[in-house]
Amino acid sequence: MRPVLCLAAAEACGGRWREALPAACAVECIHTYSLIHDDLPCMDDDDFRRGRPTSHKVFGEGVAVLAGDALLTMAFEILARTKETARYRPQAFFLDLAKAAGSACLIGGQVADLEAENKKISLRELMIIHRGKTSAMIAVSLRLGAMSANASARDLKALTDFGENLGLAFQVIDDILDVTQSSEKLGKSAGKDVASGKATFPSVLGLEKSVREAAKFTASARQALKPLGERGAFLAGLANHLLNREN
Amino acid sequence: MRPVLCLAAAEACGGRWREALPAACAVECIHTYSLIHDDLPCMDDDDFRRGRPTSHKVFGEGVAVLAGDALLTMAFEILARTKETARYRPQAFFLDLAKAAGSACLIGGQVADLEAENKKISLRELMIIHRGKTSAMIAVSLRLGAMSANASARDLKALTDFGENLGLAFQVIDDILDVTQSSEKLGKSAGKDVASGKATFPSVLGLEKSVREAAKFTASARQALKPLGERGAFLAGLANHLLNREN
Repeated sequence: MRPVLCLAAAEACGGRWREALPAACAVECIHTYSLIHDDLPCMDDDDFRRGRPTSHKVFGEGVAVLAGDALLTMAFEILARTKETARYRPQAFFLDLAKAAGSACLIGGQVADLEAENKKISLRELMIIHRGKTSAMIAVSLRLGAMSANASARDLKALTDFGENLGLAFQVIDDILDVTQSSEKLGKSAGKDVASGKATFPSVLGLEKSVREAAKFTASARQALKPLGERGAFLAGLANHLLNREN
Repeated sequence: MRPVLCLAAAEACGGRWREALPAACAVECIHTYSLIHDDLPCMDDDDFRRGRPTSHKVFGEGVAVLAGDALLTMAFEILARTKETARYRPQAFFLDLAKAAGSACLIGGQVADLEAENKKISLRELMIIHRGKTSAMIAVSLRLGAMSANASARDLKALTDFGENLGLAFQVIDDILDVTQSSEKLGKSAGKDVASGKATFPSVLGLEKSVREAAKFTASARQALKPLGERGAFLAGLANHLLNREN
């Protein structure tokens, strides 16, 4: 999903999706590395992902750690191929990706998530975890796509707001599906959050209220696209599609 | 050592060490992340490093993996602060660091090292592991320092050759010290290579021949500095110092 958001953001800003290809590949490398490391026994200890055994189950833990490291490094190697634009210098792309993937967002969120296991946390704390773990990388996928297409400051702001809300919606839905769907449907172990004492939206808010929250975040995401007018139509449709997904 | 090499390379190329500060911090982040991950139970399983318990012993494996991930990401965030020079664009710095830290060098070397455990390997295979695991990052530390100071192509080539030979010398000496020194002196577990069936220069060549190889690589490193003339004096001295180190 993240690469699609990146390419779509470039188009939404009046550019061509090809311009955002390096950024799209970079965010997918970061996403895949984070899944490989998250699935490790010392983290979420997951045996299945996308319907197949996880990396450490097939190749061993050592190689799984290194594969994640390699993908994280490769993300920056690929991003170096982005052409600078009139508004955005190469450094801007690196800073944006490093910030979203770094200890302030993605990694900080994962640390907070590990520490919240088997604890009762507030909605505010849960939001901090999910903003870090999910929203930041979804927002930066859109930002890098927009920047690759030399987006105006107004378009960039709109897509950032869209991404942050879409990310929260996406995570609430993920939490809901973990409770309501089967492992076969999800391609990963269902019911894992409850079994491992994870803080989730359903555990903090209850299932019904979580469903309403997902719809609310999706509506806020679509609202954020308003400044783009017709150019935001594809992304608005994608937000609706993600709200109604079953896996 | 790597940050010192980086700053010294900038000075050796007629620049100021301050220009190389972002690059020096970036290579140290990469080095520290690689030590944290290498020490994990699923890799070299080390309990001590620099005379203190390793990261996973103190903070747990999950946080140790994430700390490594955060340092790797931070390396690129810091490197984005390097000012471009007349000869080197920002992308050149990122590509150089990502290549040396990536699957072709640092990570590839570590994978080959894991796979060589408890196997009899040739000198050629051992050199591939050490060029990847050690030399590439030492060479890139010098390269990034030189590039920060807008080095000429000739100076950059000289420092690259110096770094590749210095890296091999450094690794041979590391292998020798693991056999000949105490854990107290090293600040990490001595005799670890033999105990875990690691391929090392002493295990492939014997101790005496390894000592001669270390001297030979050091001589080649110093020879590579010739084009720099007097500007290479500090680095040449450093190579000698490293040859005679005891930890």
